[in-house]
Amino acid sequence: MKKSYDFDFLCIGSGPAGQRAAVQAAKLGKRVAIIELEVEVGGVCVHKGTIPSKTFREAVLSLNNEIPTIKDTPVEINRRSTDRRRRPTAEKLFSRVDDNVLCESRVQREQLQRNGVDVISGSAEFESEHSVRAKSSAGDRVVSAEKILIAAGTKPNPPKNVDPKLTCVITSDDILQLEELPRSLVVIGCGVIGIEYASMFANLGVDVTVVDGRSVPLEFLDSEIIEELVRQMEDRNVTFHLGESVDCIKPCNGELQLAEVLLQSGKSLTADLVLMSTGRVGASDALKLDNAGLESDDRGRLSVDDHYRTSVPHIYAAGDIIGFPSLAATSSEQGRLAACHAFDIAAEAMPAHFPVGIYAIPEISMVGQTEQALCDKKIPFETGVARYREIARGQILGDDSGFLKLIFHAEDRTLLGVHTIGTGATELIHVGQSVLGLGGGLDYFLNTVFNYPTLAECYKVAALDANNKLSL
Amino acid sequence: MKKSYDFDFLCIGSGPAGQRAAVQAAKLGKRVAIIELEVEVGGVCVHKGTIPSKTFREAVLSLNNEIPTIKDTPVEINRRSTDRRRRPTAEKLFSRVDDNVLCESRVQREQLQRNGVDVISGSAEFESEHSVRAKSSAGDRVVSAEKILIAAGTKPNPPKNVDPKLTCVITSDDILQLEELPRSLVVIGCGVIGIEYASMFANLGVDVTVVDGRSVPLEFLDSEIIEELVRQMEDRNVTFHLGESVDCIKPCNGELQLAEVLLQSGKSLTADLVLMSTGRVGASDALKLDNAGLESDDRGRLSVDDHYRTSVPHIYAAGDIIGFPSLAATSSEQGRLAACHAFDIAAEAMPAHFPVGIYAIPEISMVGQTEQALCDKKIPFETGVARYREIARGQILGDDSGFLKLIFHAEDRTLLGVHTIGTGATELIHVGQSVLGLGGGLDYFLNTVFNYPTLAECYKVAALDANNKLSL
Repeated sequence: MKKSYDFDFLCIGSGPAGQRAAVQAAKLGKRVAIIELEVEVGGVCVHKGTIPSKTFREAVLSLNNEIPTIKDTPVEINRRSTDRRRRPTAEKLFSRVDDNVLCESRVQREQLQRNGVDVISGSAEFESEHSVRAKSSAGDRVVSAEKILIAAGTKPNPPKNVDPKLTCVITSDDILQLEELPRSLVVIGCGVIGIEYASMFANLGVDVTVVDGRSVPLEFLDSEIIEELVRQMEDRNVTFHLGESVDCIKPCNGELQLAEVLLQSGKSLTADLVLMSTGRVGASDALKLDNAGLESDDRGRLSVDDHYRTSVPHIYAAGDIIGFPSLAATSSEQGRLAACHAFDIAAEAMPAHFPVGIYAIPEISMVGQTEQALCDKKIPFETGVARYREIARGQILGDDSGFLKLIFHAEDRTLLGVHTIGTGATELIHVGQSVLGLGGGLDYFLNTVFNYPTLAECYKVAALDANNKLSL
Repeated sequence: MKKSYDFDFLCIGSGPAGQRAAVQAAKLGKRVAIIELEVEVGGVCVHKGTIPSKTFREAVLSLNNEIPTIKDTPVEINRRSTDRRRRPTAEKLFSRVDDNVLCESRVQREQLQRNGVDVISGSAEFESEHSVRAKSSAGDRVVSAEKILIAAGTKPNPPKNVDPKLTCVITSDDILQLEELPRSLVVIGCGVIGIEYASMFANLGVDVTVVDGRSVPLEFLDSEIIEELVRQMEDRNVTFHLGESVDCIKPCNGELQLAEVLLQSGKSLTADLVLMSTGRVGASDALKLDNAGLESDDRGRLSVDDHYRTSVPHIYAAGDIIGFPSLAATSSEQGRLAACHAFDIAAEAMPAHFPVGIYAIPEISMVGQTEQALCDKKIPFETGVARYREIARGQILGDDSGFLKLIFHAEDRTLLGVHTIGTGATELIHVGQSVLGLGGGLDYFLNTVFNYPTLAECYKVAALDANNKLSL
């Protein structure tokens, strides 16, 4: 006789992976619960990460988007947007964030309720391979489940060599608690989060300095896109100290509201806000993984097989806690696939062509291969580029620096990669993604009519460019 | 011996069709000229139509896009945007239009120069089947060409039953000359141009009334999209008098700045601006078509075969002058195809899946089939809908009324149609267009990861909805 458990499926964490896995299992008719540490569901994504930062970004962009007067040339628009006299208050900028967070969290809670998923409040600890304690101030509850998904997410890497008395050194999880905008900001770390916030604050007229031991930010992107990003950020007074490591951070002249950042090269930077974005670690230390026979790596992460199974076959892990790519969209898909596998439902594997979206200012997105990767694989290719300023929609938007690059196989003309930077990049990428996913190529774009005026016309212009090069 | 002509290819008009045809012929190594009536190239599209109206629209949207304060619920945002105290000046709204028009016109002139296309100023008149006179105040010039393309475009239908002394009755060609915003506007005609301007002025707080003899605006669209459009316009105080015809328009109490619009039903409307958008007629009356053995129909239009040839085989016609669909994007493609055919170059015929974009507020776009058309053809289908308010990006944008509808074949699950209304609709459509064009369907969307948060996620949510219905 089958052993009886409280639930068929238990998710630890209600971020994109846990949420989607729970709903998927419920749709398969399973009894499902989620253990969530915070008062509201949604995870870091909804409460501290994606949703708040994108709402904040929208507010920053709106500020730069007032109607230009007749004298505003693009250069003057840029200058005006970094004009100190126009600095908005932090309250104004963050005002819509809480509303959006609550709204998104409510949408997700309703979805869980609609699907009959139990939400248990508390901090999760494994008691055994099949049972988990949810600890909360209202009392503990121990629940058992046939299959378990660990989707506990990540937390910021604890800062090192930082004077703990310094109140002006924060991580991205704290950014929404800011009561006023800084005048100067040092961002330590040039990964996605660091670059996104550095570019947003620079757009508000804050003096921003970015420090990272790596020589290039976001090194997985196309190199021309990185160059354009750096150029635009430098135009907004961002200073990059790349290939430089931080020695220590201490109060400047004893002031706790002003930090001095000492670099190992001997340079000294002063700022009234320091944002530590030196990566995140899996939030696994409180889970008592050893009680389930599991172990995390030195960054708190779990390793999984192609079906998102940990070393204990009935325990799955998905989302940021398993590492790359750590995107809300891919985590959600991982959760769905894990739930399907747990209950023997066939599901297509994660598509190879998932897009990457960077919500910096300017926005960046890519899907498929980079030129560098194709060179390494010795695949012959040709590129085509369309600049926003060449097309009517780009002119109407006043975006004269955005561009779209398409990479085609030089022989069979199939699409291999799409790289874009500028207004609407994270949306625009999906046109190329579908052509990539469905095996289309250069001729699709040449023979397609796009709405006029749209940014999507870049696909046609870039394809014509590649076609001209291939016809030489 | 081949008869010698001044040019291999002559285009009459430099709008999207003429421009693109000329460049295509030049790229084939032909000697090409364009005759253009106006000082600058680009046609109605650049100077009076698409580009000015989209730039104006961008200015209107920017006004409504200021950072909402903490108290702004969506309802309050709507109310605020129609608040009379915030009425901008016409000067402010039109300020960027001239810049954009000049810029786009310059881009096009440079493209013609780069490709060695001669631009001849003047009003074109056929002298014979192969020769055209360009009449201008600087003197006439007669040029001959082996092949000729008529891409003369359209002009507004001359208003009937309107007191000619009334200065406040205009067509869309005059709208950029407005010196101040009206307080009240009557739009006669609910086609694309009428609806676009009606919605823009309504967004500025102008009292707008739309009159048309037809019972439904934009009747080629999906019926749910039309309902949503009308609902949103009515929310912004637009009054529709559909199924009603205009009897006459005369000064109100003798005032030439105030019009009284009398309907055949006996109703009377008063407004300080009347926009006549009762269709456009082909700009063929001055071309002396009979000298080339050609004849236009009663709306000034020319009929063409599948290769855009008129009844005289070496004379082609393309763009608005040949009628439906009269979109800049399709006209441009027609021009390219005509030039290719003229010089015996194989080119794929116009794709069946060209998108339609309506730049109203809200924006609308469609590609492929409507439900009604599928019903008529007895093709079994299922629909899936995603509302912007269900997805994170919609919430961040504050667009709670936009939606995307996908139509799939009920048996083979291929995509048959895409209909969308809301922010970014004219861009968003191209994702569905590529899936349609490449023969993809429901499973593509189910197995695809979209950037989060984006409006493109609507494709996944709508596909899940359709899949659920098909699984019942």
